[in-house]
Amino acid sequence: MRTSEYLITTLKETPSDAEVISHQLMLRAGLIRKLASGLYTWLPLGLKVLRKVENVVREEMVAAGALEVSMPVVQPAELWQESGRWEQYGPELLRIQDRHERDFCLGPTHEEVVTELVRNEIKSYKQLPLNLFQIQTKVRDEIRPRFGLMRSREFLMKDAYSFHRDHASLEATYQVMHGAYSAIFTRLGLDFRPVIADTGSIGGSASHEFHVLANSGEDDIAFSDSSDYAANVEMAEALAPAGERPAPAATMSDVATPGVKTIDDLAALLDIDPATTVKTLVVAGDEPGTLVALVLRGDHSLNEIKAEKLAGVASPLQMAEEAAVRKALGAGFGSLGPVGLSIPVIVDRSAAHLADFVCGANRDDVHLRGVNWERDCPLARVEDLREVVEGDPSPDGQGTLQIKRGIEVGHIFQLGTKYSEAMHATVLDENGKQVTMTMGCYGIGVSRIVASAIEQNHDDKGIIWPTAMAPYELVIVPLNMQKSEAVAECTEALYRQFREAGVDVMMDDRNERPGVKFADMELIGIPHRIVIGDRALAEGQLEYKGRRDAEPTLIDRDAIFAAVMEKLGR
Amino acid sequence: MRTSEYLITTLKETPSDAEVISHQLMLRAGLIRKLASGLYTWLPLGLKVLRKVENVVREEMVAAGALEVSMPVVQPAELWQESGRWEQYGPELLRIQDRHERDFCLGPTHEEVVTELVRNEIKSYKQLPLNLFQIQTKVRDEIRPRFGLMRSREFLMKDAYSFHRDHASLEATYQVMHGAYSAIFTRLGLDFRPVIADTGSIGGSASHEFHVLANSGEDDIAFSDSSDYAANVEMAEALAPAGERPAPAATMSDVATPGVKTIDDLAALLDIDPATTVKTLVVAGDEPGTLVALVLRGDHSLNEIKAEKLAGVASPLQMAEEAAVRKALGAGFGSLGPVGLSIPVIVDRSAAHLADFVCGANRDDVHLRGVNWERDCPLARVEDLREVVEGDPSPDGQGTLQIKRGIEVGHIFQLGTKYSEAMHATVLDENGKQVTMTMGCYGIGVSRIVASAIEQNHDDKGIIWPTAMAPYELVIVPLNMQKSEAVAECTEALYRQFREAGVDVMMDDRNERPGVKFADMELIGIPHRIVIGDRALAEGQLEYKGRRDAEPTLIDRDAIFAAVMEKLGR
Repeated sequence: MRTSEYLITTLKETPSDAEVISHQLMLRAGLIRKLASGLYTWLPLGLKVLRKVENVVREEMVAAGALEVSMPVVQPAELWQESGRWEQYGPELLRIQDRHERDFCLGPTHEEVVTELVRNEIKSYKQLPLNLFQIQTKVRDEIRPRFGLMRSREFLMKDAYSFHRDHASLEATYQVMHGAYSAIFTRLGLDFRPVIADTGSIGGSASHEFHVLANSGEDDIAFSDSSDYAANVEMAEALAPAGERPAPAATMSDVATPGVKTIDDLAALLDIDPATTVKTLVVAGDEPGTLVALVLRGDHSLNEIKAEKLAGVASPLQMAEEAAVRKALGAGFGSLGPVGLSIPVIVDRSAAHLADFVCGANRDDVHLRGVNWERDCPLARVEDLREVVEGDPSPDGQGTLQIKRGIEVGHIFQLGTKYSEAMHATVLDENGKQVTMTMGCYGIGVSRIVASAIEQNHDDKGIIWPTAMAPYELVIVPLNMQKSEAVAECTEALYRQFREAGVDVMMDDRNERPGVKFADMELIGIPHRIVIGDRALAEGQLEYKGRRDAEPTLIDRDAIFAAVMEKLGR
Repeated sequence: MRTSEYLITTLKETPSDAEVISHQLMLRAGLIRKLASGLYTWLPLGLKVLRKVENVVREEMVAAGALEVSMPVVQPAELWQESGRWEQYGPELLRIQDRHERDFCLGPTHEEVVTELVRNEIKSYKQLPLNLFQIQTKVRDEIRPRFGLMRSREFLMKDAYSFHRDHASLEATYQVMHGAYSAIFTRLGLDFRPVIADTGSIGGSASHEFHVLANSGEDDIAFSDSSDYAANVEMAEALAPAGERPAPAATMSDVATPGVKTIDDLAALLDIDPATTVKTLVVAGDEPGTLVALVLRGDHSLNEIKAEKLAGVASPLQMAEEAAVRKALGAGFGSLGPVGLSIPVIVDRSAAHLADFVCGANRDDVHLRGVNWERDCPLARVEDLREVVEGDPSPDGQGTLQIKRGIEVGHIFQLGTKYSEAMHATVLDENGKQVTMTMGCYGIGVSRIVASAIEQNHDDKGIIWPTAMAPYELVIVPLNMQKSEAVAECTEALYRQFREAGVDVMMDDRNERPGVKFADMELIGIPHRIVIGDRALAEGQLEYKGRRDAEPTLIDRDAIFAAVMEKLGR
């Protein structure tokens, strides 16, 4: 493509309403334009990236045995009523009425539609397993669309749904999808992690999220430095410290701590390590009006998802009001502790490993030092309560945990029979009996991948595309092409040669200053650049620069084609 | 693709609510399934056809210099208010509100959105012309969706919009698009005609529709048997008959015609050719309360679009009420004629060429015979009023007209400045002056092409795909593959050979009776079939059958690959 026949509309200024780097760079590089809040038009350069991602996703899904279909965007309310989601789903579900005042919605997801299709088409277990996918524009009525394509109202999704006669078959397809997703993100050249995810509210049995690692990510990912273990921090198990708990050495005594409300205050006042203290949080029990104390090491944070899954604890987790705590325990927040407590106590594994620790005395402005489990207070129940931190041992026993931020771009999920049961999707088994199908679902945010790739790969000049996603793999920039016949001739010859070799090459033949062209192509993020100028050409040389290179290098005219093809891995 | 790993869901019975053949066959062949009225899911086989059409459309648009973009489906009401269409557009425009009660619509077309984009991005005439296209799901709230994909509520459209500094540039791009459309439908293997279309309500200056010819078409297309002239019947000019009007021979006289109301009655009663009579229709004039008489030959039909474009005639055309006619002219319908009329008379070119004709006497139950223009009644105004009929001379002077039915699958349109003026889309010209851009728009109904190809190409066994659109070009049907090692071996070898040659080949390895497989593949419409059976194979032969062939032929095993490749044109 010649830029003179293309639409290059780069911006010098960063648009004021773009908060994250991917949104800023997509606007500045002319990949997208905003139509209205959360609604974007893909310009030719941006659409080319989106299509490359889409094609990789499609190819790997087909290679994994999935069949592509295309379901309507507009979905009848009746199906959502049948599954129960018409009432459950929040206002992100854009509900509409047609001219006959019949209810429909714009589908953010297609479990109901695909279940309706499959229950009508598939009659026998012999036709299973079946994995159907589509790549489609989805609509979600976000309350506050932001971050460009990270949280927009229209976006491109790959959604797949698999149907099985039993859980073992689901498990097998789930593993195949796990592999396909890894292949997709690897081919796209992204640094990613498949992480164990919470199945919480959707109620399935297993789930992995695929995260692109980037500092701007919304989620914390914990992963081992020596195995492929990775989990959302919410889900990562904190192991009990190794070895025996040390024996008590100190005796328990009061210490006055006037005005101390936090662990930091306490550690500063007593000049001790917060890791030698415990903190006591009070939450609602699962019986109305009851309270439960949760005890963690002073330097650790409560993991609410772990806590609310415990027997005896109300779910979702409710922190107790201070007034109720004072009434039940005789002291307020900041002075609580496990000694002499009259409510059930659950102790975190790390806190349970302490000896001679400091805690609140359950009297305002007083703490206890030299406290020991079992000698000074019972240790009836020990659980995993805390969030993991960097340096914790990996739960799989291999290496230690690192924590990085990630952007969720994919999610695979063992749905089980949630939809097939509600919608009576059955097949006949070997014995002629109706059995409910088991389902899995597998999503990829195709447009989100584009934004997350930029979050992961950029510098102060602009985007740095992985080659597989770049709108063009190579740009040839002639200098003064309009005046120099030698430059024009060399440019056209090389352009033709790369095109014939199947390289996605752009020729920047605009009549602009070199600085403008260089800046534009670096902003747009083309991975490889050849500059053709009169002076070097006279000596039989051209200038090559990779997008991440600090400086260009000179390469012989006769060697440049082979050199760039090698860099492109062809 | 092996059918055992695919989704083949053919139906024996024709679904009762499918009225047209394409809808019936798409359901029976398992290309689509209905989700709700006017909403269809594309199954894998159907989607494969749709994607092939989409790719041909995309490739030809790109080859013609258009740039692909992707605009949101959800569009803000403000833009439609700016163009004036928020009020003008009927209830097919699906209007919605988001959770903040802001108005949006689901775009059936994108003139407003693209004009908003271009007015912001394009500042100088140097950036023009610009032709942007997208291939996108559109939503139209049809009052009565029917005929499957012919008139559905969701459909796939290619829409393009071009921007120009002047009309000459628009004209040039319009011709390029005309050529691209012809290339698209030719590549798809369809019998089509580009026809001159009415620009009526949209108010542009030139327009062509592209019709796929098929007996079930909704439009009548008139085209020359010896040139490339073609027009919607509404638009085809009826030339004046050649030569001079014959001289009067008879004298004018009354004839009693009691109870005669129609030309057929009159011709039967008097035993004359309807082509020797004239009929007089009365319509509203363009001044309130006025009437105008339109006179046509008895065997011709009024073309309302031609009539309402004439000066003096109300537009849209309103036929007069009989009571008003009787009050003004003294007689009712069936007895009117041009003699002694007190209202303006417009005479069709063919009627104006008659001598000694029969017409109503403007007295109930009386007609006149031997009437002649200028002698018995004035011939003040002659116009083209009638619809053309088969055998009329072609308006371009070459050959005679044929009339066939067509299905509109494309439309190109010189919009002019309708949207750019309303929305103030301007560029700076050479002199630094703001000039309003001139626009063209170009649509193709991508999903409609699939249905129209079936309307044009089918028989009592099913669909007959043109090869370019076929879901698979070739099917290999092994007989008794499960038991015969020779059949299995030959099948796998040929399947591999065709795949490696880039042929889109299907292997029907289902454990079904041969008759079931043959019927399914003929219903689905695969253009080429190879049958591999034990008996023929023992003699080194395979059976080949083209989808349109009456009988299969035997071809040597060693020659079959080359023979089929030749039939595929490779």
